[in-house]
Amino acid sequence: MTPLNSLNFSGGPGVLPSSVLQQVQEAIIAVPGVGLSVLGISHRSDWFAAVVAEAETNIRTLLGLSENYHVLLLQGGATQQFSMVPMTLLAGKTQPAEYLHTGYWSGKALPEAAREGPIHVAWSGEASGFSRLPSDDELTFSADAPYLHYVSNETVEGLQFHRVLGHDAVPRVCDMSSDFLSKPCEAERFSLIYAHAQKNIGPAGVTVVLIRDELLNDAPTNLPGFLDYRKHIQTHSNYNTPPVFAIYVTLLVTRWLLNDIGGMAHMDQINRQKAALLYRLLDQSDDFYRGRAAVQDRSLMNVAFNLRTPALEKQFLSESLAAGFSGLSGHRAVGGLRASIYNALTLEAVGKLLNFMEDFQNRQLR
Amino acid sequence: MTPLNSLNFSGGPGVLPSSVLQQVQEAIIAVPGVGLSVLGISHRSDWFAAVVAEAETNIRTLLGLSENYHVLLLQGGATQQFSMVPMTLLAGKTQPAEYLHTGYWSGKALPEAAREGPIHVAWSGEASGFSRLPSDDELTFSADAPYLHYVSNETVEGLQFHRVLGHDAVPRVCDMSSDFLSKPCEAERFSLIYAHAQKNIGPAGVTVVLIRDELLNDAPTNLPGFLDYRKHIQTHSNYNTPPVFAIYVTLLVTRWLLNDIGGMAHMDQINRQKAALLYRLLDQSDDFYRGRAAVQDRSLMNVAFNLRTPALEKQFLSESLAAGFSGLSGHRAVGGLRASIYNALTLEAVGKLLNFMEDFQNRQLR
Repeated sequence: MTPLNSLNFSGGPGVLPSSVLQQVQEAIIAVPGVGLSVLGISHRSDWFAAVVAEAETNIRTLLGLSENYHVLLLQGGATQQFSMVPMTLLAGKTQPAEYLHTGYWSGKALPEAAREGPIHVAWSGEASGFSRLPSDDELTFSADAPYLHYVSNETVEGLQFHRVLGHDAVPRVCDMSSDFLSKPCEAERFSLIYAHAQKNIGPAGVTVVLIRDELLNDAPTNLPGFLDYRKHIQTHSNYNTPPVFAIYVTLLVTRWLLNDIGGMAHMDQINRQKAALLYRLLDQSDDFYRGRAAVQDRSLMNVAFNLRTPALEKQFLSESLAAGFSGLSGHRAVGGLRASIYNALTLEAVGKLLNFMEDFQNRQLR
Repeated sequence: MTPLNSLNFSGGPGVLPSSVLQQVQEAIIAVPGVGLSVLGISHRSDWFAAVVAEAETNIRTLLGLSENYHVLLLQGGATQQFSMVPMTLLAGKTQPAEYLHTGYWSGKALPEAAREGPIHVAWSGEASGFSRLPSDDELTFSADAPYLHYVSNETVEGLQFHRVLGHDAVPRVCDMSSDFLSKPCEAERFSLIYAHAQKNIGPAGVTVVLIRDELLNDAPTNLPGFLDYRKHIQTHSNYNTPPVFAIYVTLLVTRWLLNDIGGMAHMDQINRQKAALLYRLLDQSDDFYRGRAAVQDRSLMNVAFNLRTPALEKQFLSESLAAGFSGLSGHRAVGGLRASIYNALTLEAVGKLLNFMEDFQNRQLR
């Protein structure tokens, strides 16, 4: 069976670079220079300490992150961060933390935060069906909230903030799960960034957390060990057995970003090109393909769109699958169609999708 | 570089069967019948639902587990279970849960439990340097504790219970991380069993939990979602993105146990043979190799031993490494030497180690 990875437009776990997959394949039997399967190497080995250290260094380099940030590689996904953040920064506070409700994933964070302390939803896109993000005029932030939490890219709805929000006086906490390491992100304007790996940077099972040193000054000391950022910092992400394999793959992806792509600005340039091609097709399709997101808030990662009828969408999905494309159905929460064009999805693959979409449209109009 | 997996005596992450590694290697590029890399397949796909269902069925079959048990595949390792168990079963209780302190890992569970509610340490091996386990005469269990918690196999010290402990009236909770699926375990005498994968059943990053239905009857409903067993049960271990890869490898290992090994009784037989060979060597070495554990409590998984002097142990480690063996150093908490002989470590490999050990001894005595 021919591998179909190159045309995998899945919303996540998403496609990884083929050169990374080749290296992973080799490491399943024997990591070069070690001779053991990556699945059977001790997390206390010198080799693994070097893997964690290099992954951390690469992330620092890619984002220009200074030493007062910690880089952690944890388990539990963004979902665990939905709880760890308020457990650390909100428990016992009377002033509410500010949350934006801009789509499916930011909505998931709300009840988990509310369980730990007071929150204030500073803006919600619910009334507009999460079809757009707020403008600056619509946002009034408190200047003394414990923190502001938002999601930089709403994977489901295909909405992305193209600016940094909030006051410099209030710590910014951002779920960047679906656009982390896809572009420069002004990381140092945030106090805490978290991102699960399975979009742009690795397989499911590991989550990157960047955390500014002083943010933990008043953090509670009675948290369960595995929910205590400080325990993970002290142990270099080796508090308990880490997901060795997922971290190794993440390291390989950071190497690919540095050495093959040439850094965040180049990655961003490629991602912008891919997104521009797809959005131009939507815009020039005479309303055959209907973009879900407001133009100014369109995601460079997830191009969500609809066709005239659910039946036509079903036909599109089945024909695209037959043509070798996978993962083009929308998230089950909203339906429709979605082309996720993460880092490892190539410009060439987008070109093939464009051809298919033009052809599909022509055949309907014939 | 020749793969050294066959002689990997690491305490964990440990060796996996070579036939499993071959299949994993293929799946890194394309899962047979799917055509996508196992690292880029959606956790919401039919394929992955079938993976979870088959892994669950295989574990049920291997252990003869009835339908009133749930089989979960979670993240966070045994460490997360150290907290999830008391959060679920102890919070708000006045009667203490009973814990045994039999070594390094059971000791790690104590402070995490004590944070959530009252505990009583029913026995501690601290005074005897964790060189033995309690006899029945030494154990007095409360008949109305919320639960009894113990560790079936202490990986660090090489101690293993060869019987089930406690009252049938008190729910048994057991950390079987290092001997799960190495032998029949009378699973239905336990209310909750947990085991991280990285010893006998898969790579680091996934943890199996078996949980008896009625145990959750009074569980709190205000836990963070990812710490709530019921949320994971309702969603078939798909509450948030699961570690797809680690679960897939675990499935392959359960297939290997069923089809290649032929079930738990056969696996146990092989494991007993391996352990018997090594312990016989220790016993017949005229005190050259000194077993760490009391004879009646010797682990079939981790053979911990010492040599006369730390210098000699260092020499043993360096020569064994040069001879192609890896992972023979003891856990950093206790030092010494340790041969971990998990399921996938073959009888043939144990034979090679025996030869090396005999030869090493002869060379010292010459």
